[in-house]
Amino acid sequence: MSLDGYVAGPDQGADHPLGVGGERLHAWMRELEVWRRAAGYEGGVTNANTEVFERADDGVTALVMGRNMFGGGPGPWSADPPWNGWWGDDPPFHMPVFVLTHHAREPLVMQGGTTFTFVTDGLESALEQARAAANGGDVAIGGGAGTARQFISAGLVDRLLIHQVPALLGGGVRLFDDPALATLRLEQDEVFVGPGVTHLGYRVVR
Amino acid sequence: MSLDGYVAGPDQGADHPLGVGGERLHAWMRELEVWRRAAGYEGGVTNANTEVFERADDGVTALVMGRNMFGGGPGPWSADPPWNGWWGDDPPFHMPVFVLTHHAREPLVMQGGTTFTFVTDGLESALEQARAAANGGDVAIGGGAGTARQFISAGLVDRLLIHQVPALLGGGVRLFDDPALATLRLEQDEVFVGPGVTHLGYRVVR
Repeated sequence: MSLDGYVAGPDQGADHPLGVGGERLHAWMRELEVWRRAAGYEGGVTNANTEVFERADDGVTALVMGRNMFGGGPGPWSADPPWNGWWGDDPPFHMPVFVLTHHAREPLVMQGGTTFTFVTDGLESALEQARAAANGGDVAIGGGAGTARQFISAGLVDRLLIHQVPALLGGGVRLFDDPALATLRLEQDEVFVGPGVTHLGYRVVR
Repeated sequence: MSLDGYVAGPDQGADHPLGVGGERLHAWMRELEVWRRAAGYEGGVTNANTEVFERADDGVTALVMGRNMFGGGPGPWSADPPWNGWWGDDPPFHMPVFVLTHHAREPLVMQGGTTFTFVTDGLESALEQARAAANGGDVAIGGGAGTARQFISAGLVDRLLIHQVPALLGGGVRLFDDPALATLRLEQDEVFVGPGVTHLGYRVVR
């Protein structure tokens, strides 16, 4: 998240998947060796952010994401050739992933333990299916920006881990932008400073 | 600042000087013995926030604030009885204070070294007069929310010290809410965690 509250810049689309300027929010992560290895790139650094990146997935055994994060735009799925997202044959998730979409399709079984299940009946259904698949583990909301925002606004999130970057985007998708959020009570349970980012953890108090 | 970026809640006015829910943003400060003593109250605690509160004024020798922070609403000044703000006869500033207002009036000399000078010709003029009065020291923008916001948007601020509170207000005055801010470059130079608040310092890179 930028200091002005954006989790993606303005004008998100094929040219700017994170919005204009949005890549500044992910720079701390993309330079990490551990991230690059998981994403199939060489090189990278190991620093204080490595531990936060690795710990963020501890105990997570299922994932929910939006159609945009899986890959592709808002239209129906292309059948020929079939479009299997932009994460390659061996996606870095290695767990069941539930993709929110308006267009039904059969589940996709990828290499390395990742399966994509497509959910057309909304946030709560996706969460319910992910919970069942998680088998007692935690469910993470992977993103993108709009999906994270909807889950928080719907009160479906128990814990937030915000990677706050000293950048101002001036526009885009705000993580928090809903009068109803005033009723959400938070308790800060972690602050961790790494190069180019401050990691802020919050528990939602019920 | 709340986690959703507000420095005052919605519906600011006489009933809610900090907006609805805005007092949650200042709770960490108002419980401090050092704040209470300066404001003329008894009691209070000393904790990790005390040091941040005391250091925030180091080197500051002049202050700029908005009319609302001085006290009172947007109308002309009351002459009889004269209205000298809501900080009492011995305000806690002890330095020259420049108050932005649309209504001219003579300077006010208070006890304890505080003088209020009323500036009717805008932000840059107030800053210039404060710089001259600061005599080589730093000028702080005291607030309120709208005044801080205008100075940041105008590019007149060299350093930001943000006291980020784990609360969501859902509405009010955002500190950052301007597309032009995307050109401002920041460098984080401090992170300090205290009870109920995280203090984040940023230098504006020119």
